[in-house]
Amino acid sequence: MSDAPASGGPGTLYCVPTPIASDRAPDADLAPAAIALVARLDYVIAESAKTARAVLKRFPLERPIQAIEIVELSEHTRDDAIGPMLAPLRAGRSAALMSEAGCPGVADPGARLVLAAHAAGVPVVPIVGPSALLLALMGSGLNGQRFAFAGYLPTAADERRQRLRELEQRSRRDDETILFIETPYRNQPMFDALLASLAPSTWLCVAADLTGAQQSLQTRRVADWRRAPQVLAKVPTVFLLLGR
Amino acid sequence: MSDAPASGGPGTLYCVPTPIASDRAPDADLAPAAIALVARLDYVIAESAKTARAVLKRFPLERPIQAIEIVELSEHTRDDAIGPMLAPLRAGRSAALMSEAGCPGVADPGARLVLAAHAAGVPVVPIVGPSALLLALMGSGLNGQRFAFAGYLPTAADERRQRLRELEQRSRRDDETILFIETPYRNQPMFDALLASLAPSTWLCVAADLTGAQQSLQTRRVADWRRAPQVLAKVPTVFLLLGR
Repeated sequence: MSDAPASGGPGTLYCVPTPIASDRAPDADLAPAAIALVARLDYVIAESAKTARAVLKRFPLERPIQAIEIVELSEHTRDDAIGPMLAPLRAGRSAALMSEAGCPGVADPGARLVLAAHAAGVPVVPIVGPSALLLALMGSGLNGQRFAFAGYLPTAADERRQRLRELEQRSRRDDETILFIETPYRNQPMFDALLASLAPSTWLCVAADLTGAQQSLQTRRVADWRRAPQVLAKVPTVFLLLGR
Repeated sequence: MSDAPASGGPGTLYCVPTPIASDRAPDADLAPAAIALVARLDYVIAESAKTARAVLKRFPLERPIQAIEIVELSEHTRDDAIGPMLAPLRAGRSAALMSEAGCPGVADPGARLVLAAHAAGVPVVPIVGPSALLLALMGSGLNGQRFAFAGYLPTAADERRQRLRELEQRSRRDDETILFIETPYRNQPMFDALLASLAPSTWLCVAADLTGAQQSLQTRRVADWRRAPQVLAKVPTVFLLLGR
């Protein structure tokens, strides 16, 4: 079994980020040592086995992909399935926890397994890789000394407006950059709501398709966005605001 | 000049993460394409020229390091120095913005230049690389659907206790993971304050020397940490709490 320590101790749970842009090879974003590490594991826990298999096929695997055990862990997975998932790790086998895209456990299921690993004394090792949130923050020019990720916002217009105003107030008060995401087909209504709801002096960054072919990253004050109306592509997008 | 577009348009500002563990080579964390990109640039903006030079020497540079222009941008840099720093980019030259360690602009100076680049129409491209915050969150098993980075906390005992309680309350109310950092020589007093101030049922993760030789990452409830007192190493550490 790969990576089984000679001592008979537990295996390691590696948190492995996957590409965030469609059709991007893992080695475009991961260091060679991370690629080699994943290539030798025979146990993978992923949100969807189908997506995991498609990603794994692009690694220089040390064994046929059929020989890699892939177990699914999604938001629908019951809590009592976590223990059995962890059992091989307790017995000395190492595993990769992989997200659908980006970092496992960050805006993504997977954290439950990691927490259970800590409780079981299974070492957890996060691997450096792509995160749309981090890339967006880095490239936004907005405050990276204080920031918060608010997840998805409400979709109903009234609630969304209310939530945006709360977030803008908190951001202004604490000088805190607020990040949130939206499903791609709702990018345009979200953007329109942002321009309608936020103060003209508030900073707004739209970071779309990061690391992808349609990558676009722009920060402007709301007043300036209003002067240059945009049609947003239906691609994964991170929105960032800094209240002013 | 490297990367000057044929059209005569502006250059690109690349936000390039650097190793977060001491003595770690850039290619241990960055993808080959990112290494090659940095290797061909001749203009670097960094917090400290000395550190930047030490990091750059580990890249397969296309020119002697003396031929790379390195300009410093720190918290002490005056606002009126940003324009001249950006001028070469406006004129078509590309540059790397590099942090002392980790991601430029995230818990780190540099954001001012990025914001100015957006205003000047200079494209900004963030590069995938190491962030202690992101690695700690991924490996913590705590909530990655909602989280906030609070920067440094007050050092005076009373203020720190007060701030910790505020953060714990907010975390509990919003189910939001709170991340913060401390200078290494204050890790132990911070940890002791956490155990003394937080509720027994609150989750606490201590993520030390991520990607480094002394890497350690553990999440427990405060009650469990109290039963197993720790001596924290004086290495870069991220603390995460999730109020319960």
